Amino acid sequence: MSTTTREWHLAARPHGEPTPADFRLVETELADPADGQVLVRTTAMSVDPYMRGRMNAGRSYAAAWELGEPMQGGAVGEVLQSRSDRVPVGSRVLHGLGWREHAVVDASQVVVLPELEGIPLTYHLGVLGMPGLTAWAGLFRLAEFHEGDAVFVSGAAGAVGSLVGQFARLRGASAVVGSAGTPEKVRWLTEELGFTAAFDYHDGPVRTSLAAAAPDGIDVFFDNVGGEHLEAAIGALRLHGRAALCGAISGYNTTEAPPGPRNMMLVVGQQLSLRGFIVGSHTDLRPEFQEAVAGWLRSGELVARETVVEGLDHAVTAFLDMLRGANTGKMVVRVGG
Amino acid sequence: MSTTTREWHLAARPHGEPTPADFRLVETELADPADGQVLVRTTAMSVDPYMRGRMNAGRSYAAAWELGEPMQGGAVGEVLQSRSDRVPVGSRVLHGLGWREHAVVDASQVVVLPELEGIPLTYHLGVLGMPGLTAWAGLFRLAEFHEGDAVFVSGAAGAVGSLVGQFARLRGASAVVGSAGTPEKVRWLTEELGFTAAFDYHDGPVRTSLAAAAPDGIDVFFDNVGGEHLEAAIGALRLHGRAALCGAISGYNTTEAPPGPRNMMLVVGQQLSLRGFIVGSHTDLRPEFQEAVAGWLRSGELVARETVVEGLDHAVTAFLDMLRGANTGKMVVRVGG
Repeated sequence: MSTTTREWHLAARPHGEPTPADFRLVETELADPADGQVLVRTTAMSVDPYMRGRMNAGRSYAAAWELGEPMQGGAVGEVLQSRSDRVPVGSRVLHGLGWREHAVVDASQVVVLPELEGIPLTYHLGVLGMPGLTAWAGLFRLAEFHEGDAVFVSGAAGAVGSLVGQFARLRGASAVVGSAGTPEKVRWLTEELGFTAAFDYHDGPVRTSLAAAAPDGIDVFFDNVGGEHLEAAIGALRLHGRAALCGAISGYNTTEAPPGPRNMMLVVGQQLSLRGFIVGSHTDLRPEFQEAVAGWLRSGELVARETVVEGLDHAVTAFLDMLRGANTGKMVVRVGG
Repeated sequence: MSTTTREWHLAARPHGEPTPADFRLVETELADPADGQVLVRTTAMSVDPYMRGRMNAGRSYAAAWELGEPMQGGAVGEVLQSRSDRVPVGSRVLHGLGWREHAVVDASQVVVLPELEGIPLTYHLGVLGMPGLTAWAGLFRLAEFHEGDAVFVSGAAGAVGSLVGQFARLRGASAVVGSAGTPEKVRWLTEELGFTAAFDYHDGPVRTSLAAAAPDGIDVFFDNVGGEHLEAAIGALRLHGRAALCGAISGYNTTEAPPGPRNMMLVVGQQLSLRGFIVGSHTDLRPEFQEAVAGWLRSGELVARETVVEGLDHAVTAFLDMLRGANTGKMVVRVGG
């Protein structure tokens, strides 16, 4: 085995949209695991919207990445060396030290993954992992979805949005409407994921497109985008409507505060609820989430699409492309074997 | 008894701030109650912020007032004639046909009020009535207040706000901060109502004043004002903070949509909940509310201040003055003996 390995470091904190110059791929000595640790070879790593916040100084959703230090994120891999009885060599594991070819991790910080037939390991970064649980918690807990609700999801072709819409369909939504950024994604939502309607948000004001797609209004809104989408959704929510605010990717790279929704008065009159959340506060839902989703994957009722980028060298490109909406479904970077 | 009576009619729908010309005081024949009805002589009527919405066409919180027809609103009075066994002559009652000297009301639509020592009848329009229940429902149900929370109330010297702050204090808030529109109101909040801190929102940006009054942030926000107050409060809410959105009086007379809060991203990151509500959806809380409030009134722990305007002729002036913040506590109009 090579005695060196490679990892991505944060080289600079961006002002506005990040560029490749904000990252640096560094070759470094491969460390041996200490007692209680394991050495993991990364097979795939995750790139996610929330990571944009970790590039900034100060806490956002998660702790800021340190300048000049390796970045973190979800990853799956295989244990090459183990100094823990709990995690034997050869185990396939999930951990939080992505963005690198190899990781030395405390055994207490890894999840040993079961071998499930027909379930690729990368699903633990997406449909069965953090994005999946995010969709689950937002839809069912924060937005209190119940059968018969009409649902609108922004960023519906992304890792989280594509699951929100399908969960709603599978649990008996009366309508599922999604917005996305390309005609291909819009077609994918209606033709393959079973959305009732979808629109390209470039085609006109979101308010207009949403009114056409959901003429009777909506009961639930799941927001990944923010800005104009949020204002349009507030305008479409019916009495006692509920919104789960998961993210606002439209504003992640802006340098000035985006305009807020001008129709907050409707929140009072329509008795709406707007609730922001971070998935880490809802991990108690993981067992029910994983059981339901594994069942839907086995039965083929749930589509779990990935956009796969090959090679650690291209991880930053994958991340920047994802922020611009280049992915359909979950964006993952395959690192090795 | 006179065979004529007087009542206020809506003469025009205002665009922006209403003026006296939008109302007309009309003399009309006094009708006899039909079977199942009672004739009530109004002793006092309520003017409330939500009535501004009823001047517009279309539904707001409550049904629109009809052009050329008598207006409605909370009132208390004495039963002069009765054709219902349930409501005898001489009863003191609460009903929804204010803005007139006499009302002919279905007995099923009146509440017979108990004679409570030391409790003026007008309290059923304020501290023991709709504004009180609004404060109760918003604070305890929508904002899920619990002991130790730091609370901020906008429009804190109004009928609802002055009760929100006192309810929070009586239930063990760690801090109670209020905003109001005059130095006298600010003094009243801290010196007589037991607010921890208060500020005049004319004195500078709400954000700055709130940061000075609550340097460690807040857990609960009760909003009567909207606009700049809402944005400032979102910025001050701590992790898992909760806002009950009750009204947005700053925007009731505007003709263009006011700017929305530019910091909605904090709703996600801080995992905030913003919930709008209308008191009519929470009448199930009335028994617990009335029991607690009656107890606090008897013990003298709760201050229930009224601004009283004399005479039906001045009801419109009272209403317009209230919209401009001329009242401290509940604004009521005494109509007769």
